[in-house]
Amino acid sequence: MPLACLTDFQAYARERLSKSTWDFIEEGADDNFTRDDNIAAFKRIRLRPRYLKNVAKVDTRTTIQGEEIAAPICIAPTGFHCLLWPDGEMSTARAAQAAGVCYITSMFATCALEDIAATAPRGLKWFQLYAHPDRQLNKQLLQRVESLGFRALVITVDVPKLGNRRQDIRNQLDLKMSLLLKDLHFPKERTSMPYFQMSPIDSSISWNDLSWLQSITRLPIILKGILTKEDAELAVKHNVNGIIVSNHGGRQLDDVPQGEHGVEEVLNIIKNEFHTSMTLTGCLSVAEINRDLIQFSRL
Amino acid sequence: MPLACLTDFQAYARERLSKSTWDFIEEGADDNFTRDDNIAAFKRIRLRPRYLKNVAKVDTRTTIQGEEIAAPICIAPTGFHCLLWPDGEMSTARAAQAAGVCYITSMFATCALEDIAATAPRGLKWFQLYAHPDRQLNKQLLQRVESLGFRALVITVDVPKLGNRRQDIRNQLDLKMSLLLKDLHFPKERTSMPYFQMSPIDSSISWNDLSWLQSITRLPIILKGILTKEDAELAVKHNVNGIIVSNHGGRQLDDVPQGEHGVEEVLNIIKNEFHTSMTLTGCLSVAEINRDLIQFSRL
Amino acid sequence: MPLACLTDFQAYARERLSKSTWDFIEEGADDNFTRDDNIAAFKRIRLRPRYLKNVAKVDTRTTIQGEEIAAPICIAPTGFHCLLWPDGEMSTARAAQAAGVCYITSMFATCALEDIAATAPRGLKWFQLYAHPDRQLNKQLLQRVESLGFRALVITVDVPKLGNRRQDIRNQLDLKMSLLLKDLHFPKERTSMPYFQMSPIDSSISWNDLSWLQSITRLPIILKGILTKEDAELAVKHNVNGIIVSNHGGRQLDDVPQGEHGVEEVLNIIKNEFHTSMTLTGCLSVAEINRDLIQFSRL
Amino acid sequence: MPLACLTDFQAYARERLSKSTWDFIEEGADDNFTRDDNIAAFKRIRLRPRYLKNVAKVDTRTTIQGEEIAAPICIAPTGFHCLLWPDGEMSTARAAQAAGVCYITSMFATCALEDIAATAPRGLKWFQLYAHPDRQLNKQLLQRVESLGFRALVITVDVPKLGNRRQDIRNQLDLKMSLLLKDLHFPKERTSMPYFQMSPIDSSISWNDLSWLQSITRLPIILKGILTKEDAELAVKHNVNGIIVSNHGGRQLDDVPQGEHGVEEVLNIIKNEFHTSMTLTGCLSVAEINRDLIQFSRL
Repeated sequence: MPLACLTDFQAYARERLSKSTWDFIEEGADDNFTRDDNIAAFKRIRLRPRYLKNVAKVDTRTTIQGEEIAAPICIAPTGFHCLLWPDGEMSTARAAQAAGVCYITSMFATCALEDIAATAPRGLKWFQLYAHPDRQLNKQLLQRVESLGFRALVITVDVPKLGNRRQDIRNQLDLKMSLLLKDLHFPKERTSMPYFQMSPIDSSISWNDLSWLQSITRLPIILKGILTKEDAELAVKHNVNGIIVSNHGGRQLDDVPQGEHGVEEVLNIIKNEFHTSMTLTGCLSVAEINRDLIQFSRL
Repeated sequence: MPLACLTDFQAYARERLSKSTWDFIEEGADDNFTRDDNIAAFKRIRLRPRYLKNVAKVDTRTTIQGEEIAAPICIAPTGFHCLLWPDGEMSTARAAQAAGVCYITSMFATCALEDIAATAPRGLKWFQLYAHPDRQLNKQLLQRVESLGFRALVITVDVPKLGNRRQDIRNQLDLKMSLLLKDLHFPKERTSMPYFQMSPIDSSISWNDLSWLQSITRLPIILKGILTKEDAELAVKHNVNGIIVSNHGGRQLDDVPQGEHGVEEVLNIIKNEFHTSMTLTGCLSVAEINRDLIQFSRL
Repeated sequence: MPLACLTDFQAYARERLSKSTWDFIEEGADDNFTRDDNIAAFKRIRLRPRYLKNVAKVDTRTTIQGEEIAAPICIAPTGFHCLLWPDGEMSTARAAQAAGVCYITSMFATCALEDIAATAPRGLKWFQLYAHPDRQLNKQLLQRVESLGFRALVITVDVPKLGNRRQDIRNQLDLKMSLLLKDLHFPKERTSMPYFQMSPIDSSISWNDLSWLQSITRLPIILKGILTKEDAELAVKHNVNGIIVSNHGGRQLDDVPQGEHGVEEVLNIIKNEFHTSMTLTGCLSVAEINRDLIQFSRL
Repeated sequence: MPLACLTDFQAYARERLSKSTWDFIEEGADDNFTRDDNIAAFKRIRLRPRYLKNVAKVDTRTTIQGEEIAAPICIAPTGFHCLLWPDGEMSTARAAQAAGVCYITSMFATCALEDIAATAPRGLKWFQLYAHPDRQLNKQLLQRVESLGFRALVITVDVPKLGNRRQDIRNQLDLKMSLLLKDLHFPKERTSMPYFQMSPIDSSISWNDLSWLQSITRLPIILKGILTKEDAELAVKHNVNGIIVSNHGGRQLDDVPQGEHGVEEVLNIIKNEFHTSMTLTGCLSVAEINRDLIQFSRL
């Protein structure tokens, strides 16, 4: 049977994955309220179609942080792709390159960044960072990222503590162990997961540390996980290059804003204040795959 | 068991049709949000009954584009009736004639237009067109339609691209093949489906092409699929004779307006602006059978 | 197991009744929207409890049309009680007398009015009428009702046509036949159902006929089935003695107002306009058992 | 499988308890509307997370009625813990002491107050009272409570009549009998339940009796069950030391206010009027475990 939509791919994956891997991907944090709100928010979107327009040819190209993409779509950073497919993030990078969209590579990628960069040399790639308590390690990593041709740095701000995913607790999931198991397609021969070893995440990082981050990289800095007007205003004030409005697909703090209503005050800042002040060259609100509301504004 | 309502007919049909035919009829586009919204919109309708009125005799007659009908009801254009019943659209035409309502014959009818016209000579009939990229073919067809006594031309504007019906993809439905299969009641001896061969639909047609359409027919022109105030205003400006507010039963673009709230701004134009300007002689909002909100306004 | 609430009684009845009798009682008209709305409206009622009040003794007595009842509750008129219990409406009358509430006897009672009156001589009883096209028959019936001690006349206005109950159609229910079947506890020896034979109901009756009805009875007249502000105002104007706000338990026209929102404009008239004009001595909004919102206002 | 959340504990308990004990704990009054509203109200809570704050160290300490607790959480008074665990309320008291939160011991505790006090000597404990019609019994009990080191008196005001719990009626639950059954872990050797024998609850108690209650104890008095602005204002006027906004977990009167909307007018009084007048030293809105909305305001 042909796979006609995401739901079909979901069913296809569920049949083929172990329960603990499926749960790891499918589940949100705590009561799954935010995950479910995200899906419901998608369902509330309504389009007002205009007709009798010549649509024989359609062009969806745009630019993001100065680079052209074929459509206003980025692949959000998600980790552990080798749990699902033998060559993990390398497949994702090639798919993004083929579609002409931006691939934001997660710091928890299970392929080496060198391999990801080499397999899709023409595709636009950004790198996503969880700051490590050891500042020297952050600096070394970012130098490597820059030299491999990643064009922007996405700093995730919504994981001061890891989300409480109940099914992972019940399954006693151990990602490090899982990735060593033979049946999970992990490319053991590669010296990967150096970044995964970098845990724990620094929970002390604050707005004051942004100038230090800006001092150790030439890449534009995008903050991922902003959900409030106040934090969006602080992002403008601290001269970051963009923000990603996201609730982490409902996998971090549960019961947070979502959808067109929950985050409209942030989107208004993206549309109005950033636009008039022109501080940022690109401002973006992307979503976890299949989970969040996708909003996109460009300056 | 007597069939007491549409739901009973639905169950009756489902038992007797092949899965792919049932799915073709039942399914909307994409996530079925609009199809389901349509049904929910019907459920939200509330009447304010006034009592102690003499209702021993009730008269529901009205006129549409100058012709009298027994009730303010038209049968919306739907194709491929031969999938469901041996003499397909001829049955529908006779039923409409018996009920005294208008039958809008679809361009994707599976009976010859001559047969449809001949079987119900006294019934009011309109013809629905998907414009073809070859203008000459459109002209020839409309001349034939006029000579057969169809009294208005309904141009569907909401199919610049065919709706994405997932179940049809999963079923690998091939309508041309299906109609040749013996068990589908298709009248092979007739030279039907000439219009079905006319595909593809012209996706370049725009408001500027309306004057050309008006030049090749004497029939009043009704635009079907208008969903926004802006397009309704353009319809007034372009001197069309009516509009049909419809989301194609949720079978075209999903996530579009529906119901009394979703399209009220359009209905207000029908009620107010058209009424005062008197540009149109009849203005109508019909619905896909059992799917849409039925609204009817006459000037 | 003790029967702890109406739901328990419902389950108890369903087990013991034939399918067609259960359906006749349970079902509303058409899509059951109004029936279900009624139940939902009940669920929406919220009380604001005040505490630290001395409630050791509670008195719920009030008066209706000048008669005292133990609580502001009337048993709404429903027909065919013999379908459910051997002595039918006589049981109901005795229960109402024991509880000290008013029993509105339906014209479609399956016990003789004489028997109902005799079995509960001290209970307050009203009589409910569907007007018959033959005016003389109405007059004779009302004289009999008066002589039996019924204290008010309830005229049902919301049945110009009988509600379309699909399950009854599917079950090919024939009430006259059902009541003659042995297993339905019908008291064959009694010459009952004289009123049931009076069908059909007069669908030509209008506001202008009220003065005639007022001329043939000394009983106060209550209109049952008023759902709009306009009709409530007409009731004031025509000097009726009360109105019952009811949608017939959702068994007549479907998709009509219900609950505290749907009928609030009517209830406001009951509270305000009737109160100031003092035209009516009692004004009441009762409900079908277990179905409607119960509202009660007295002047 | 690890127990990851309250839902897991619920399933664990359901497997191990008799049906009548489970029902007694799980069920609300009447239709369970308020119980279910409470759960829905929890689900509606949305947080607005602010990020890039240093959260390496978090301190949730606060004070209540002058005593420090580790977090703004109290264990609400619930009775009959011996139905669930051999040493009943003694376990609860030790758990509260370990967590550093306040334990409000129910008058319907199934362990002797002396044992509860002795098993958790350092934990903050309050005592909850249902006033008995015999005033002398109330006085004796409160003297004992004070001498055992309970630091506040919580008077429940929302049980002038016991809630109508249908499942208990259907199960013919007899709590006194249940607690004597061997399989219910009841500590028969102890002379407990002296207060349970004190039933019935005084339904005549009113605001005027508060001064008498204040005269027989030195403990601060907290009223539990206030749901309206009017009663909150009366509480201020009568110089009580705090109120607990609660609908008794939906186990008393059904269909009452709940959640952030239902009780916001009361919470506004807690926040505004009490704050400015400074009459109360602490004002608290706690919830039944897993049922109510938890709101906490301190002055």
